[in-house]
Amino acid sequence: MGGFVSPDWSGRLGRVWAACAPAARILIVSTPVNIKYLTGFDGTAGLLVTAPERSWLLLDGRYERAARQAQREGRLAAVDVTPVPARFDQALGALIGTLGAGEVAFEAEQVTVATLAAWQRAAPAVEFVPAYRTIERLRLIKDAWEVAAIRRACAALSGVGRGLHEWVRADRTEREIARDIDQAMTTAGFSHPAFPTIVASGPNSAHAHARPTDRRLASGDLVVLDFGGVLDGYCGDLTRMAGVGRVGTEARALFEAVRAAQGAALAAVRAQAPVHEVDAAARDLLTARGLGEAFIHATGHGLGLDVHEAPRLAKRAAPSDASAPEEPPEFRHLAAGMVCTIEPGAYVDGLGGVRLEDDVLVTTDGCDVLTDVPSDLLLV
Amino acid sequence: MGGFVSPDWSGRLGRVWAACAPAARILIVSTPVNIKYLTGFDGTAGLLVTAPERSWLLLDGRYERAARQAQREGRLAAVDVTPVPARFDQALGALIGTLGAGEVAFEAEQVTVATLAAWQRAAPAVEFVPAYRTIERLRLIKDAWEVAAIRRACAALSGVGRGLHEWVRADRTEREIARDIDQAMTTAGFSHPAFPTIVASGPNSAHAHARPTDRRLASGDLVVLDFGGVLDGYCGDLTRMAGVGRVGTEARALFEAVRAAQGAALAAVRAQAPVHEVDAAARDLLTARGLGEAFIHATGHGLGLDVHEAPRLAKRAAPSDASAPEEPPEFRHLAAGMVCTIEPGAYVDGLGGVRLEDDVLVTTDGCDVLTDVPSDLLLV
Repeated sequence: MGGFVSPDWSGRLGRVWAACAPAARILIVSTPVNIKYLTGFDGTAGLLVTAPERSWLLLDGRYERAARQAQREGRLAAVDVTPVPARFDQALGALIGTLGAGEVAFEAEQVTVATLAAWQRAAPAVEFVPAYRTIERLRLIKDAWEVAAIRRACAALSGVGRGLHEWVRADRTEREIARDIDQAMTTAGFSHPAFPTIVASGPNSAHAHARPTDRRLASGDLVVLDFGGVLDGYCGDLTRMAGVGRVGTEARALFEAVRAAQGAALAAVRAQAPVHEVDAAARDLLTARGLGEAFIHATGHGLGLDVHEAPRLAKRAAPSDASAPEEPPEFRHLAAGMVCTIEPGAYVDGLGGVRLEDDVLVTTDGCDVLTDVPSDLLLV
Repeated sequence: MGGFVSPDWSGRLGRVWAACAPAARILIVSTPVNIKYLTGFDGTAGLLVTAPERSWLLLDGRYERAARQAQREGRLAAVDVTPVPARFDQALGALIGTLGAGEVAFEAEQVTVATLAAWQRAAPAVEFVPAYRTIERLRLIKDAWEVAAIRRACAALSGVGRGLHEWVRADRTEREIARDIDQAMTTAGFSHPAFPTIVASGPNSAHAHARPTDRRLASGDLVVLDFGGVLDGYCGDLTRMAGVGRVGTEARALFEAVRAAQGAALAAVRAQAPVHEVDAAARDLLTARGLGEAFIHATGHGLGLDVHEAPRLAKRAAPSDASAPEEPPEFRHLAAGMVCTIEPGAYVDGLGGVRLEDDVLVTTDGCDVLTDVPSDLLLV
């Protein structure tokens, strides 16, 4: 772990202003995961006010003492812990009032219409200026601490993935298998699943986001096994496929098509590649095999503190989307230090569905695959 | 379960307009849990547009097929499943364009500033009118299906609670005990924990929202055990206390004070009681024992699809909050059919913390305690 005792909070807070500063010189960060990224605070209620030289973390009484102790132990950034005696909007208004700022930026993609109205009431002299994806832009590129954490999560998740053959058997239910996977993740040290584990068999496998049911696996089934866990705050995400008993020729061909599509997408990953080209690598291959319509989701997504974060490896926006505000270029191209999933799939009613998913670290000339589980169809 | 085969979706959708209609005759519901409450859809991406006679559920390709199957099986309300080919804002704009509405209400407490801006671009002729807590108001009072589901969750959680003595022992770590609790919840049928399980021992117990650490339980410790699970979509939430080895007189007195405070609050629960009076019943008792400052959170919260929902059983707003928009009266008084936690606590640095929590169904003349675990200090 290379001698890191705690994340480089001050570096992260500094980059807010060095790399992607909003025009206003004060930014209110209210997205919990962004607060966690910048300070280490991971409670459910808090507001970070950050300026180039100083930052304040507004917390209610439930968290204040724990925060001060975390600060003493290096688990929380050197921010001014500022207690909120009653209401967050009032405490925020009081703080930015003392700062004398005319303009204050806020996270327009997180702050609700109701919250902004309350802030405006609490600080009527301030102009609140919408900021877009400020911290998300920083989070696109993982720092060394984050890469190490994600490597640990992917290694532990791969250990769980290599145990799938113990749990996936004919006559067991999807729900039983999902519970075994969840318990194995707990045993492997994950604090919690990153999302509800998917075990989707037979006809259920044709639904990309099925939930485990009491259906028992039966001969001929394709089984999608998609699971992820959170370890030291960072996510891993993995999908493997099983086939039960006598798996038909068509189902095997579906599996092989998706495996080839995943290989093509993995081969397309490198710094500076447009995200839509990685998606196209998988999509074109499936389209050539008549499965273009069966690939109903994106090829992948960023992975980090959130199990779904930027960038999104998807089709280029259609011309009909021309009215939409274009994503900033940083979100449309891969860069070294990004971590994302590569997970094409194909879903055919009456036949079943296939998805294969691995997690990769983007490098200058390719990628480093962080998950390590054979991707063969697990025959049970 | 009284013959319910699925929740009464049409009754719930009807009550939007019968009981708490916004002025506009079209409401966009975008809060996932509110969509789930009204329709049964529990994916992560969807928009519900509801009008008095008809409702539309906008879903992307990942969910469309699963939604139609759920509808055939009665797991999804009879709404018009409306596919979203590309972007939600565009699909929403197209739909409300065809409806010819001048005003459309939206959930101001959920819709972000950025989303509202996108909707306004997609439907420039529409006036978007903020609505506050429309569906939350319906969800305050649980229907028969919900009460049955919460009873099942509380019964299962109580079973886990009665097993605590098996896991809580000196020399075990907080994290080990939390994992045992989590595994017992899985075995009891919970789909996932309702929140990260809290096992807080000794000095850690003085933090109301501690996370489990590798600290080993030691003689003299008070141990807060706070856990909850989600069963069939509904939450149970329970806190019990253990004492390790030789628990001192002061710690026992702290425990007895909180137990008395919980009893006082439980005795104050009944339909039409102001929520702040239930809080005051616990708070006054703790204040009389010199622990007023040590009770740093509210006495309880509503429980249902969310583990924290309305009403909030807290102090009456201080006079300094007079500028705040007052909560509607339905949120400030208990009513028959509400379900909430009763969980006073007291946290004293250098001594430890105590919290006791049960879940109750409010009735006309009192309450029905849904959790059933002895509340004595569990001596281990």
